[in-house]
Amino acid sequence: MINRSEVLAASETIRGHIRRTPVVDLNGITLKLELIQHTGSFKPRGTLNKVLREGCGPEGLIAASGGNHGLAVAYAAKQLGVPAEIFVPTISSPIKVARLRSLGASVHVGGSVYAEALLKAQARQAETGALAIHAYDDPLVIAGQGTVGVELHEQAGDLDVVLVAVGGGGLASGIAAYYGSDVQVVAVETEHTNAYAAAAAAGRPVAGDHVGGPAADSLGASSIGVLAFDILRTNQVPSVLVSDRWVLTTQQMLWTDFHLVVEPGGAAALAAVLSGAYVRDESRKIGVVVCGSNTDPLGVIA
Amino acid sequence: MINRSEVLAASETIRGHIRRTPVVDLNGITLKLELIQHTGSFKPRGTLNKVLREGCGPEGLIAASGGNHGLAVAYAAKQLGVPAEIFVPTISSPIKVARLRSLGASVHVGGSVYAEALLKAQARQAETGALAIHAYDDPLVIAGQGTVGVELHEQAGDLDVVLVAVGGGGLASGIAAYYGSDVQVVAVETEHTNAYAAAAAAGRPVAGDHVGGPAADSLGASSIGVLAFDILRTNQVPSVLVSDRWVLTTQQMLWTDFHLVVEPGGAAALAAVLSGAYVRDESRKIGVVVCGSNTDPLGVIA
Repeated sequence: MINRSEVLAASETIRGHIRRTPVVDLNGITLKLELIQHTGSFKPRGTLNKVLREGCGPEGLIAASGGNHGLAVAYAAKQLGVPAEIFVPTISSPIKVARLRSLGASVHVGGSVYAEALLKAQARQAETGALAIHAYDDPLVIAGQGTVGVELHEQAGDLDVVLVAVGGGGLASGIAAYYGSDVQVVAVETEHTNAYAAAAAAGRPVAGDHVGGPAADSLGASSIGVLAFDILRTNQVPSVLVSDRWVLTTQQMLWTDFHLVVEPGGAAALAAVLSGAYVRDESRKIGVVVCGSNTDPLGVIA
Repeated sequence: MINRSEVLAASETIRGHIRRTPVVDLNGITLKLELIQHTGSFKPRGTLNKVLREGCGPEGLIAASGGNHGLAVAYAAKQLGVPAEIFVPTISSPIKVARLRSLGASVHVGGSVYAEALLKAQARQAETGALAIHAYDDPLVIAGQGTVGVELHEQAGDLDVVLVAVGGGGLASGIAAYYGSDVQVVAVETEHTNAYAAAAAAGRPVAGDHVGGPAADSLGASSIGVLAFDILRTNQVPSVLVSDRWVLTTQQMLWTDFHLVVEPGGAAALAAVLSGAYVRDESRKIGVVVCGSNTDPLGVIA
C-alpha cells in the first residue's frame, strides 16, 4: 500500500508539469484552490505521475472518460508530445467534447453509456498498445493525486483535519496516504454519490447505484476503488454525507463571495463544513480541497 | 507624499478585515489573484483604511459609484455596522445596483452620467455629514490599496518588476509608494483609458476623454489622481498602453487556462506582458496584479 514516500516521489516526478495551486482563508478554514489546476481539476497530477513513471511510446495514451479524467489524459499527452485517444459516450456534452479536441485529443463518441465507451476503449487499446490510465484505481495515479496534500502541508502548516470529496477515492486516498496518522482526513460524499459510505458500511467495495444528483459527473463512481478503499480504511478515514441542496448552496457562495466557478463535486467538501454535516471543532485547524471547476458556468452565476 | 511606512501602517489597520489573496505562477510570472478579494476587487483595502483611520459616526459612509468603489464602500459599511448611501447614474447596470443593495446599501439611482450622481452625493453628504470616500485621490485610500504590494512582497519575495493596471491611479501609486526604488512598478492602461499616459506626456494631470473601450467601467477616469500622479512620477513609474483586443484575449485566456472570471481592467496588466506591449526581460522576475472580477460572466465564458 502506498504511503508518504510514494507521494513525495510523485511530487518530484510531476514538478514543473503541474501548477502549484494557491490557498486562501475562509473564516479560519484553509481552502486549497485546486480548481485552478490545469484542465480545471486535480486529475493531471495522477495521470502525469503514471505516464512519467511508466513511460509511453509513440502510440500515446488512451482513456474512456468524458469528464475531468479525460481532460487530464488529453492534457498530459499534449504536454508530453504524444497522441491521446479518448472514448466518450454519446450523452457527453458537446462542450466537453470540444474541450477534449482543443487539447489535441482524438475523441471517439460512441456507446450510450460509459460502460460501452469503456469497452470500445479497451478494444482499441488492445490494437494500439497505447498506455491506458485508470481514473483512480492505480497506485501511481493515487500517489499523484496525493501531491495536493504535499502542497497543502507546505502552504498551510500543521492542519488537524483535511476534508476531501470522494468519487472513486483517488484524491482522498492519495492525501490520506501522504498525511498518514498526522492529520485526520475526512471523506465527503453527497447523498447520491456515496460509494465510500456504502463500502464502509459493507466492509468492502460494493457496486451499486452511487451516481446521481448534481455532483454525479465528477463524484459518481459505480464503486469505490479497491486500492483507495484499502488506504482510506487503513487510515481510519471517516465518511461524511452532504445533501445536494448544501452542495448547490456552497457552489453559489463560492461564486458570490470569491467569484470562483466551482463544480458541484468541487464544492462538496466545503459544503460538509458549512452545512454542519461535518461538525467543526473550533480548536482544530481545518483544510478543505476545492478540487474542480468543470461545470456549466451558467448554472453557477445566476 | 506617502511612502512605505504609511502602507505598512495601513496593512496593520485593515488586517482581519480584508482577505489575503493568493498568488499563482504563470510561466514564471507571479499573478496576484486580487480578484478574489471581498467584493471582487482590491477596493475594500483603501476604503477600510480610510474609515478605520478617520472613524465614522452613525451617519455612515457615502459615495458616488456604480462600480468597484461603490461595492467596496457598501462592503466596508456592512463590516463596520454603519449605513452606506451610494449614488449611481441611471445608466448603471441593474446587476450592480442589486449587488450594492445585497450588501445593505441605500442605493440612489439618478442623473444620466456619473458627474450628476456625484453632485447628488455631495449635496446629500452636506446634509447628513456622512464620511465621503474618494475612489482614489486620498492618501489613506492610496495607502490601503498599496497593501496589495505588502502581501505580494511577502508571497513572491524579491520581484524586479510589478505591473499594475491604472484608472485613477490609486492601486498603482499605493504599490509604488510601498516598493519605492526597490522594484520597478509599471503602470498599464488601455488604448482608450489612458489618463496616466496623457498626464505623463503633459507633465501634469489633464482632464480629457480617457474613458472608452471594454475596460472603461473599471479603468476609466476623466483624469489621473493628483496624489497618484505625484507618487507615480516621483517613483519614475513608466506608462504602458495595451490594446483592447489584447485585453479581451487575456481575459479569455484567464478563463480557459485558470477558470477565473476576470474583468477587462483586471486583465490589462497581464495583457501588457502577453502582448509584448511591455517587453519582458527573462532575467527579471515579474509580478502582475489581477485586480478585479466584476464583469458580466457571460462575456467571458463564451
